[in-house]
Amino acid sequence: MAASVPIAGNRFAIIGGASLVGSATAGELLDHGAAEVVLFDNFAFGSDAAIAHLKDHPRLRLVRGDVMRMADLLRATEGLAGVLQLAAYMTLSMDRDPWSGLDVNIRGVQNVLEACRANGVRKLVFASSNATYGYGPGVAGELVEDTPFHSAGAPPAAILYGASKIIGEQLCRDAYRKWGQDYVVLRYSTVYGERQHYRAANALYIIETIDRLRRGEAPQVFGDGSETKHFVYVGDLARANRMAFESGATDVAVNTSGPAPTTTLELVQLVTELLGGGKAPEFIGAEPGKVRLTSGGAFRIAHEAAKAAIGWAPEVDMREGLRRLIAWRDGNEGRNSNEERGA
Amino acid sequence: MAASVPIAGNRFAIIGGASLVGSATAGELLDHGAAEVVLFDNFAFGSDAAIAHLKDHPRLRLVRGDVMRMADLLRATEGLAGVLQLAAYMTLSMDRDPWSGLDVNIRGVQNVLEACRANGVRKLVFASSNATYGYGPGVAGELVEDTPFHSAGAPPAAILYGASKIIGEQLCRDAYRKWGQDYVVLRYSTVYGERQHYRAANALYIIETIDRLRRGEAPQVFGDGSETKHFVYVGDLARANRMAFESGATDVAVNTSGPAPTTTLELVQLVTELLGGGKAPEFIGAEPGKVRLTSGGAFRIAHEAAKAAIGWAPEVDMREGLRRLIAWRDGNEGRNSNEERGA
Repeated sequence: MAASVPIAGNRFAIIGGASLVGSATAGELLDHGAAEVVLFDNFAFGSDAAIAHLKDHPRLRLVRGDVMRMADLLRATEGLAGVLQLAAYMTLSMDRDPWSGLDVNIRGVQNVLEACRANGVRKLVFASSNATYGYGPGVAGELVEDTPFHSAGAPPAAILYGASKIIGEQLCRDAYRKWGQDYVVLRYSTVYGERQHYRAANALYIIETIDRLRRGEAPQVFGDGSETKHFVYVGDLARANRMAFESGATDVAVNTSGPAPTTTLELVQLVTELLGGGKAPEFIGAEPGKVRLTSGGAFRIAHEAAKAAIGWAPEVDMREGLRRLIAWRDGNEGRNSNEERGA
Repeated sequence: MAASVPIAGNRFAIIGGASLVGSATAGELLDHGAAEVVLFDNFAFGSDAAIAHLKDHPRLRLVRGDVMRMADLLRATEGLAGVLQLAAYMTLSMDRDPWSGLDVNIRGVQNVLEACRANGVRKLVFASSNATYGYGPGVAGELVEDTPFHSAGAPPAAILYGASKIIGEQLCRDAYRKWGQDYVVLRYSTVYGERQHYRAANALYIIETIDRLRRGEAPQVFGDGSETKHFVYVGDLARANRMAFESGATDVAVNTSGPAPTTTLELVQLVTELLGGGKAPEFIGAEPGKVRLTSGGAFRIAHEAAKAAIGWAPEVDMREGLRRLIAWRDGNEGRNSNEERGA
C-alpha cells in the first residue's frame, strides 16, 4: 500500500478545479479532513459560480494559474501529497482551437507530471475519458479497459480529444516507469449533476431537455431514441477521485461510469417524469451528411475494474442524480443560465 | 482533379528530407521533372550520408531548418506547389524524449499546415504509419483503413507514437475542413531499402540479420519465427508520395504496404539465401516480463485503397528489395556503419 495517500491531514491540488468535477471533489476531500485543497484554474473554462459555495472554506485555497505555465504549477504544488489533473479542452473547444487544446491536454499533463516530480507529490490522479474508446459503429457491447480506440468517420476534434487523452495516460505510465511516479487514471464517462455547465456535448443534452420541458416545449430525441448514453453522477466521481488517492493502486487505468447505461428515450422519459410531466418527445430524423458524436450499437462502460483497483462502484442512479440536478437548477436557475453559459 | 499537382515544372519541399524516404522521394520527384526540390532537415536524425548522392543536383536545394521554427518553415515553403511532411520521432526516440517527440509529431504537423496555408501550398502529403492500428493481440487479420487503434499492453512510447500519428492525420482533416487544404495521408508500413538507417525497431532487424550472417554468426529469430512483418520497399514509397501529389485525391488516408507480409523466419531464410548461405537461425525464447513491439496473430496491411485513391500498388517484393539493400550495403559498408549509427 505504498501508493496509498490518506486524505486526512494531507494537502492536495485540483488542477482545473473551478469546475463541475473539481468543486465536487474539493468538497469531498475537505469533508474527509484534507489539511488543504488548492483549486488551481485559469478561469478560461472554470467559473466562479462552480466554486461559489466553497470559496470561503478555511482549508480551501484558490490559485489563479495556468497549466501551461510551469512556474504557476511548481508553486501551487509545493508540499502536496496528491494532485488531481482535470484541466482539459473537451471536444467542442478542441474544434474551435486545436492548438490550445492539444497544448493543454498533452503539454499540460507533462507539466503537471514534472511539477509532481519536482515537488515530490506522491500520487497523481489523472482524469481521462471513455473517449479513449472512440466513436462510431465499433463502439458497442461491453467497453472494458483494453477496448481499442475506434475513430472511423468521427469528426477531427473528437478524435483529437480521444487521442490526446490516450497520450495523457501514456505520459503517466512513462513517468511511473522513469521515476516511479504513482498515479491512477480514471476514465470518466459523461458527468452530470449539480453545477452542470454547458460545455460537454452529451451532458448538454440533459440540460437542454430540462430547459425545453420547463418552457413547455417538446423534448427532442434523435433517431428512434435507442442510442446509448452512459453517464456518471458527479458525486460518484468525486468519491472515485478520493478513493484513487486513498487506495494502494498505482500504474492503472480504470473506467468510472454510472450504475447502468440508458437510452436517449429512457433519459427523456425520466426527466419528463421528474419534472411532473410535459410534452411528448419530438423525434428528429438523422440529418443526412451531418456527423454527430454517436455510438453505433448498444454499449455499457464496464466499471468492475475500478472496484478491484480502488474499491469504487457508482452509487447514484440516473433517477436520483437527475432529481438532484433538477433540484439544484430550481434553486439556481437565474444565476446559472447567465453565468455558466459563457464558459 | 482540382487537387492534382503535377510534378513537372512544380516546386516541392520534403520536410525531414535528409532521410531514407526523403532522399528516395527527392530522386523520384527530380526524375519526374520537378522544377525544384527543397530538402528541409535539422539533421537531428537526418544524415549527410542519406543525401550524399543528391546534394550536387542542380534542382535540389538543401535547407537546414527545424520543423518547430515557424520562420524556417515559412521561408522554405514560399512558392511551392507541394510539401511532403516526413519529420517525426519514431518509437525509440520517443521513448528517450517524449517532450520533443510529441512536439515534433504534433506541433510540427500544425506548423507545416500553417506554413502551407500562409504560402498557398496546394497539397500536403503526410507520412503517417500503420502504428495507427497499434500493437498487441488485437492487431490481426486484414488491417484496413478503419481498423481501430489497439494499445493494451504496449509500451508507452509505442502508444505515444501511434497516437501522435492519429493526431497528425486529424490535423490534416481539420485543415481541409477549415481552409480547404488538400492533403493525402499515406500510412507507411515499415520501410527498408538502400540508405537504411539504424533507428526503426522493425527495419533494424533486417540490418542486424545481414550483419550477423556477414560476421559468420547465426541470425536470431524470436519465438517460433511465425511473427508477421509487413515491410514496404523505399522506392515503392517514393513512388506513392509522387502519385499522391499527382492524383486528384484529397482528404483521404490510405495504407502503403509492400506486396505481401512475411514471417520473421521467412525473412531470415530469404536474407540467408541472398547472401549465399550462412548459419541456421538461432531461436530465442520470449523473455518473460519483457514487452516487445509484437503483433498478436498473422496480419496483412491491405493496400487496395491506395490503388483506388492514388492509383498506387507496391511493385518490389521482399526478394528484390532485399537484394537491392544488400547490394547497396556491399558498396557502402564502411561509411554506413560509422556515419549512420549515430542518428
